[in-house]
Amino acid sequence: MAQSRLATFRALHSADQPLVLPNAWDHASAAALLAAGFPAVGTTSLGVAAANGLPDGEARTRDHTLVLARLLGTLPGLLTVDVEGGFADEPDEVAGFTAEIAAAGAVGINIEDGRGDAGLADPGRQAETIAAIKAAVPDLFVNARVDTHWLDLATDTTLARAERYRDAGADGIFVPGLSAPADIRALAASLDVPLNVLYAPGRHTVAELAELGARRISTGSLLYRHALHSAVETARDVRAGRPVTTTVPSYSDLRRPSR
Amino acid sequence: MAQSRLATFRALHSADQPLVLPNAWDHASAAALLAAGFPAVGTTSLGVAAANGLPDGEARTRDHTLVLARLLGTLPGLLTVDVEGGFADEPDEVAGFTAEIAAAGAVGINIEDGRGDAGLADPGRQAETIAAIKAAVPDLFVNARVDTHWLDLATDTTLARAERYRDAGADGIFVPGLSAPADIRALAASLDVPLNVLYAPGRHTVAELAELGARRISTGSLLYRHALHSAVETARDVRAGRPVTTTVPSYSDLRRPSR
Repeated sequence: MAQSRLATFRALHSADQPLVLPNAWDHASAAALLAAGFPAVGTTSLGVAAANGLPDGEARTRDHTLVLARLLGTLPGLLTVDVEGGFADEPDEVAGFTAEIAAAGAVGINIEDGRGDAGLADPGRQAETIAAIKAAVPDLFVNARVDTHWLDLATDTTLARAERYRDAGADGIFVPGLSAPADIRALAASLDVPLNVLYAPGRHTVAELAELGARRISTGSLLYRHALHSAVETARDVRAGRPVTTTVPSYSDLRRPSR
Repeated sequence: MAQSRLATFRALHSADQPLVLPNAWDHASAAALLAAGFPAVGTTSLGVAAANGLPDGEARTRDHTLVLARLLGTLPGLLTVDVEGGFADEPDEVAGFTAEIAAAGAVGINIEDGRGDAGLADPGRQAETIAAIKAAVPDLFVNARVDTHWLDLATDTTLARAERYRDAGADGIFVPGLSAPADIRALAASLDVPLNVLYAPGRHTVAELAELGARRISTGSLLYRHALHSAVETARDVRAGRPVTTTVPSYSDLRRPSR
């Protein structure tokens, strides 16, 4: 029997190199990233929110997230979906939503304990939510995001939350904003599930993060912001009469598999 | 009384410089382009189709086009929407759809006479459709796209169609694929409505197109393709350990007005 998709995805977190997980915002970006040889793609909640003129992290993009999951779930690659805080307060309701995400074809989700202006979720309640998700959809890789570092909270707070989420069944821990090498090394060494960090341009490389013990490296909103920036710069170049590269591929070229 | 939006948009076609019209595919790209000082944005049907995993030019994106128009119609700038061939066969049905697009906040549309694998629409029928749109929504700038050049048809076929559409009420004529300077000059001189051409990287500049008589220069799918390409290249750079620029703006920076 073929390995389950969960096992395949899990194995990418314990390979020679960390899993570099690029984040797509629509069908074409996901298709192009898979064609470029990435075995899995995530989504970016900032991209989904911004594409739809909505704020990020305020639980406003539930339906858009599900639509995107259904669009990307048919692509030939592994998909993990950013569901912000789960778009509901009740653990069972969040679990029901993640079951829909899984049914759309996702092998994993990211779920965050940040609650925007309200700070952080109660860790016990967040652990209940994670347990409810794993009970409802055991084959879903639950990557539990701990938003302490974006709030400059101490590493021991991060570790305490991470351990609680792991005990509740989380398959991985994601700490965006964690970037000091010593902090990454300490947290990776303390956890017995894969540590996911956010790639910070100019800050570190995949090789350095690998050496520190990170097992998954996400690009977050970086690709979407590069995309927007490139579109605007190209339009400015046209307007100003500056040369515009002629080598940008056609859409079908972008979807043609290559490494 | 303030000038109507149609009059404002029309005036951009007879200013000192041609109207450089960048094409957006979502809320963030449109917002960022307006923030960069473009007074108007178009949409790209390729972008809309590709973002949703659908083919372009096969009348599959009617609902997506309307959703996008509603998203962008609230932005502080002028909006013109690519409606492919109108997403219906009956002129009245197309007119009804364009009324919805106008109600969403668009000041103009692009409507094409290309019919994908079926070649070109009957020009009489296309003229009827344009007349029906102008009867239903007189304040909508109808930019009639003539797809002859993508089929390598002769310039006199293009001119004949363009004149028919103008007689039916078209406010402008768009001929993508028209790029030989002599052809642009001849067509612009023969038309008494603004000629819109597609910007071709490496082929010409805005100044050259202005001198030839073009009054509007669209970027078509170029920005969307640059965006996708930039996202994929950035992801490849991260994976390969190559430096990634640290200067890409945040999403809120991209929306901050500047020239």
